Amino acid sequence: MEKVRIVIAGPRGRMGKEAVYLTGRTDHFELVGVLDYKHEGKRLNELDDFTSPAYDVPIYTDIEKCLQEVKPDVLIDLTTPEFGMFHAKTALQYGVRPVVGTTGFTNENLAELEALCEEMDRGCIIAPNFALGAVLMMKFSKLAAKYFDDVEIIELHHDRKLDAPSGTAVKTAELIAEVRKPKKQGHPEEKETIQGARGADFDGMRIHSVRLPGLIAHQQVMFGADGETLTLKHDSYNRTSFMSGVRFAVDEVLKANVLIYGLENIME
Amino acid sequence: MEKVRIVIAGPRGRMGKEAVYLTGRTDHFELVGVLDYKHEGKRLNELDDFTSPAYDVPIYTDIEKCLQEVKPDVLIDLTTPEFGMFHAKTALQYGVRPVVGTTGFTNENLAELEALCEEMDRGCIIAPNFALGAVLMMKFSKLAAKYFDDVEIIELHHDRKLDAPSGTAVKTAELIAEVRKPKKQGHPEEKETIQGARGADFDGMRIHSVRLPGLIAHQQVMFGADGETLTLKHDSYNRTSFMSGVRFAVDEVLKANVLIYGLENIME
Amino acid sequence: MEKVRIVIAGPRGRMGKEAVYLTGRTDHFELVGVLDYKHEGKRLNELDDFTSPAYDVPIYTDIEKCLQEVKPDVLIDLTTPEFGMFHAKTALQYGVRPVVGTTGFTNENLAELEALCEEMDRGCIIAPNFALGAVLMMKFSKLAAKYFDDVEIIELHHDRKLDAPSGTAVKTAELIAEVRKPKKQGHPEEKETIQGARGADFDGMRIHSVRLPGLIAHQQVMFGADGETLTLKHDSYNRTSFMSGVRFAVDEVLKANVLIYGLENIME
Amino acid sequence: MEKVRIVIAGPRGRMGKEAVYLTGRTDHFELVGVLDYKHEGKRLNELDDFTSPAYDVPIYTDIEKCLQEVKPDVLIDLTTPEFGMFHAKTALQYGVRPVVGTTGFTNENLAELEALCEEMDRGCIIAPNFALGAVLMMKFSKLAAKYFDDVEIIELHHDRKLDAPSGTAVKTAELIAEVRKPKKQGHPEEKETIQGARGADFDGMRIHSVRLPGLIAHQQVMFGADGETLTLKHDSYNRTSFMSGVRFAVDEVLKANVLIYGLENIME
Repeated sequence: MEKVRIVIAGPRGRMGKEAVYLTGRTDHFELVGVLDYKHEGKRLNELDDFTSPAYDVPIYTDIEKCLQEVKPDVLIDLTTPEFGMFHAKTALQYGVRPVVGTTGFTNENLAELEALCEEMDRGCIIAPNFALGAVLMMKFSKLAAKYFDDVEIIELHHDRKLDAPSGTAVKTAELIAEVRKPKKQGHPEEKETIQGARGADFDGMRIHSVRLPGLIAHQQVMFGADGETLTLKHDSYNRTSFMSGVRFAVDEVLKANVLIYGLENIME
Repeated sequence: MEKVRIVIAGPRGRMGKEAVYLTGRTDHFELVGVLDYKHEGKRLNELDDFTSPAYDVPIYTDIEKCLQEVKPDVLIDLTTPEFGMFHAKTALQYGVRPVVGTTGFTNENLAELEALCEEMDRGCIIAPNFALGAVLMMKFSKLAAKYFDDVEIIELHHDRKLDAPSGTAVKTAELIAEVRKPKKQGHPEEKETIQGARGADFDGMRIHSVRLPGLIAHQQVMFGADGETLTLKHDSYNRTSFMSGVRFAVDEVLKANVLIYGLENIME
Repeated sequence: MEKVRIVIAGPRGRMGKEAVYLTGRTDHFELVGVLDYKHEGKRLNELDDFTSPAYDVPIYTDIEKCLQEVKPDVLIDLTTPEFGMFHAKTALQYGVRPVVGTTGFTNENLAELEALCEEMDRGCIIAPNFALGAVLMMKFSKLAAKYFDDVEIIELHHDRKLDAPSGTAVKTAELIAEVRKPKKQGHPEEKETIQGARGADFDGMRIHSVRLPGLIAHQQVMFGADGETLTLKHDSYNRTSFMSGVRFAVDEVLKANVLIYGLENIME
Repeated sequence: MEKVRIVIAGPRGRMGKEAVYLTGRTDHFELVGVLDYKHEGKRLNELDDFTSPAYDVPIYTDIEKCLQEVKPDVLIDLTTPEFGMFHAKTALQYGVRPVVGTTGFTNENLAELEALCEEMDRGCIIAPNFALGAVLMMKFSKLAAKYFDDVEIIELHHDRKLDAPSGTAVKTAELIAEVRKPKKQGHPEEKETIQGARGADFDGMRIHSVRLPGLIAHQQVMFGADGETLTLKHDSYNRTSFMSGVRFAVDEVLKANVLIYGLENIME
């Protein structure tokens, strides 16, 4: 099997570093270059975190030069929303398939990329969340909501998290709301003897946010009906959890010739 | 909305009794008769457990007489495998759609019912498991197994259960095995210092059977990958858990004109 | 071993019935009579739910007559707060040890019983909660709170429950508050983007109340610290869960000669 | 409040490094020196992982010189069993209280340290497990086993773990066995249709070992009785989980003048 030639943009970031290591341990992946905003002209394995000979590849600061010289199959971008869009466009223009892991794309951005995919006959994957387990939890929640009118979401995070509920919990509730029969859950006359006990009300369902030191990022979606409950639970222990999604996206983008926004759309 | 006219076979059994109550509390269901092996000529509400006027319907011991006189839309059968087949066939011959909750159908039985469905242009649902949550847990397990190579099943039941693993656990493992890449899980050189610690080996995955007084019927399917786990958990607290599936099946069988074996095939 | 002679007050109530069955399946217990507000002169096994010959014991409506005639070692009272106090007093006056499972005792009641225990040199147990698992969960929560400053309580009940948080959750929080260093948990600047997400604030800790059909009565107390969490979880599936506590209380009251209020005080 | 003067042996090890950081973020702790097998004469903050000025303390290779010069209150040893014993003895001889986090002490070692504690009137703590949550889980399991005859242990670890069951699971089972009434659990005639389903048999209770990538170190001890279950669960997410135990041990050893083996003996 021929190896997939990969360029990674943002190799020194937290996600980018893991992606570099991913190429190192995946047999059919080959890292052929990286894009950074500094270290032009150096080799990646001259940097502290990448001393393995597997990472003896050139560092570029200019994406066009990079794509022309190393001719990758796929560009994995793990930088920022601004650079993500620029990198995705440029890659497509060179016939290189992008896998982008940043959020913040506007509808205009997506329309532009969609057109470019068609023009170049190349696929492109934008994935706000690469953790396959989290994507599946959300997908299954939406499926289950057709059969269960009652559901509560409990999300649990470390206590340095500022906002409650978490973005994933709200996103999950939105997906459920698309299919669930609207319903104010709980006893019609239930009352809180201490305010807030019943959690956040989202369209009649309830979201509870637990914050404790020690925890990392966890969520459980609990459906209830007569005599039974169904619970979908995702535990994220560290950011290597994103790497199975990156690997999956690279393999999928090679078969695609359209824009794919969100891994849930290619997970059947 | 016109009500669905329903006959229940086996109304005094544990499941049958719950099904009768289900018709009582479901607005668009109407119980019009029951099939029993005794009490011919009585009314159901003359029996101890069914004193509500909603259950003032005739008891039949002869299925043909019953179908001719009360002309139901659906026959719900919660009797035994032998009667289940006989009732399903007879109902179809009268143009009545069967919903059957017994196991033990042979391939010949299924082929015969399939042909009869086509001939009569009527649907028929055979459901070995009516708990929607359990059906979804199995369905989602199969979906998730495409993305996670590693999975273990923990099933937990009361300690009066004789066999381990449970039928549901084995069925789940079979469904997973259909799509999962074969793999011997755990450390290649792992060793049990006490025999059995790593559970039952099913095609390289492991099944663990917990038995404790107090428990009822529970199962969790746990998938693991770098940095994350995804857990699908079903808790069955009592047999009313089957009723949401019976209701779903009645609504679906009305739209069907083929044989459906297993609710998972109509849950999307 | 000599059997413990037991009288049960309130044998037809939901708890009382279970207590009768408990005597039937406990080798060293012997039911010798019951106290009811009707059926005087009948035998218990003449009633529908108690047809076993093991329950061929007299029914009394007059407690004094009962105690004089059958001379029990222990009176188990599962009636109402009003009768509970009257039965406990009368039993002690006859030298019979009471085990009472009702709530609502005033401080005056308790003082009176305490004095009577001393005078008669007999033990008496008043237990607002007989589920040993729930009592241990609360006891362990208080112990753990010495070592963990951060704790959240999640209680989960069926959706017919009116009040949130549950009484057990509040009781648990009170016990924890007795030993925990006061602390406002979570990020000092955390904010709820949907009100109530962080649950009920009890002395700086948070309580979350989940309500779903299917659930029965469940609680988990979750402690967090750097890199670890400790979770204490109790699941109550039905009211037979109280019976291990009743059996324990009967055995303990025989060794006691003082008033014991709450099983936690004799569980070491 | 006067600060506790602390020397750490093994500062560059995985646990030792965390202990150094612990002194940095604990107000009443003051790191006054470290013991290493190299870097004699350097300052700790000259090393890569410790560049903060808080770690500008001398590195010693000779324990006696260290103790004489910096006169600590407590020596925290996180090295190896061999050095642990030598360091503990030497510290006690200098009147310094040791807190040792290594395993492998023989009964002779313990006897010798016990005598030395008495002679010097100084406390010494040897803790095979510093995770307070894990210690409490084991302690509570032993307490609960008095009231529940039925218990199963499920331990879950990453799939690079070689042995099953884990050491903690076996230790927990041993503690339970000290108080539990011996009992062969499960249905007397239960049978495994796939070998190993019911897990490892330890004195009639069952231990199940789950191994999945993503997992770290988790254990749940589940007790069952009529109608209820009680579950004690510990999740260890990373080795900072040991630090709350180290802090606790330092505070406790200052009040002690005897040998303490295992934190469970001072956690009430």
